[in-house]
Amino acid sequence: MNLKSSNPKQIAAEQAVEYIQDGMTVGLGTGSTAYWAIQQIGKKVLNGLQIKAVATSIQSENLAKELGIPLIPFSEVEEIDVTIDGADEVDGAWNLVKGGGGALLREKIIASSSKQLIIVVDESKVVTHLGKFHLPVEVVKFGFELTRNKLSALGCEPKLRMVDQQPFTTDNGNYILDCDFKQINSPSECHDAINNIPGVVDNGLFIGMAARVIVGYQDGSVKELKLV
Amino acid sequence: MNLKSSNPKQIAAEQAVEYIQDGMTVGLGTGSTAYWAIQQIGKKVLNGLQIKAVATSIQSENLAKELGIPLIPFSEVEEIDVTIDGADEVDGAWNLVKGGGGALLREKIIASSSKQLIIVVDESKVVTHLGKFHLPVEVVKFGFELTRNKLSALGCEPKLRMVDQQPFTTDNGNYILDCDFKQINSPSECHDAINNIPGVVDNGLFIGMAARVIVGYQDGSVKELKLV
Repeated sequence: MNLKSSNPKQIAAEQAVEYIQDGMTVGLGTGSTAYWAIQQIGKKVLNGLQIKAVATSIQSENLAKELGIPLIPFSEVEEIDVTIDGADEVDGAWNLVKGGGGALLREKIIASSSKQLIIVVDESKVVTHLGKFHLPVEVVKFGFELTRNKLSALGCEPKLRMVDQQPFTTDNGNYILDCDFKQINSPSECHDAINNIPGVVDNGLFIGMAARVIVGYQDGSVKELKLV
Repeated sequence: MNLKSSNPKQIAAEQAVEYIQDGMTVGLGTGSTAYWAIQQIGKKVLNGLQIKAVATSIQSENLAKELGIPLIPFSEVEEIDVTIDGADEVDGAWNLVKGGGGALLREKIIASSSKQLIIVVDESKVVTHLGKFHLPVEVVKFGFELTRNKLSALGCEPKLRMVDQQPFTTDNGNYILDCDFKQINSPSECHDAINNIPGVVDNGLFIGMAARVIVGYQDGSVKELKLV
């Protein structure tokens, strides 16, 4: 008996993995949806799929190691063929908000060096306008109060992300300011305005980076999101 | 006897300090020219000048403390009235290359929150075209090889800055790639293209930030650079 899962994240992730072919260098995302993609890649590697992988987090790196997925260092990577990752929000133009888990920068570095970024989400992440999910902005610790003032001036409410009553620190040693914009009407302009502020390392808007968006539904179906 | 110094950096720095007035919040730069500005501010504070200061480096902070200049934390700063800092290159449009000392990001954060950035240099730093001095680019350590590839694609030769055969690490925990562009014809475009690369934290081009450029000459004269 081989019952098909009805977990929307899992079925979307498994469909995305079909795009991986022998000989590819594959970027492994981070989070609850990327988890299912890595699991599926592990199964395929066991069955003979020949790939090399790079990971966007220690977490995904460890999972890949457990599953026997061969990892290579960045010094050996010229270009990544395909990266599979999740998102916190995706709109009809395939603009994304990412970074709820705090790995936005590493995910963006990997995505920007990938020929194809495939985004996998469940239906709850598909939105008409980005911005309901607070936009994470990674900032250096030095003078972050000044950086926060400049973010506020763009029309949002930035809050320092806390964990156990301490500021959360990213893998790169920076802070995250979660910015409540309510609604982001011009994602591309918003992205550039934020990144032009000295002290900002990067933000969770991924503009024009996704090559496919695969959506899993509660009813067990999977569809590729049409570009509006 | 009160012989006037003929050190071009010192005389330019001392002229810049004349713009500081009672009640101001002052940004203290970093490097051999900013050193003279801080020394002069220290003398004026001893003589009764009432200011508060923030520093762009541990080095300048320590010097300020020695000289009795009152320092305040960033959490108490809304805006900085005037910042005095050096530069590695300055062109006729007052565009700058900074960061030879590795403090470009902190200097840029302070400069961007300053009503007035006064640049002090000796005549050797005034150039027709920026780019002879290698442009420092601060990048996160993660995947820096991918970031370096993207910088190369912009037409420069990026070299990882080394100290004692180890990669140099900035105060923010990042690497510096010194990029040899030979000549930078469009500083503003170059600035944006570099900062759009995920993994780049910031670069040493300061575009449209300087409010005055004060130049000290070997012959003992000081002039404000005319904006071309």
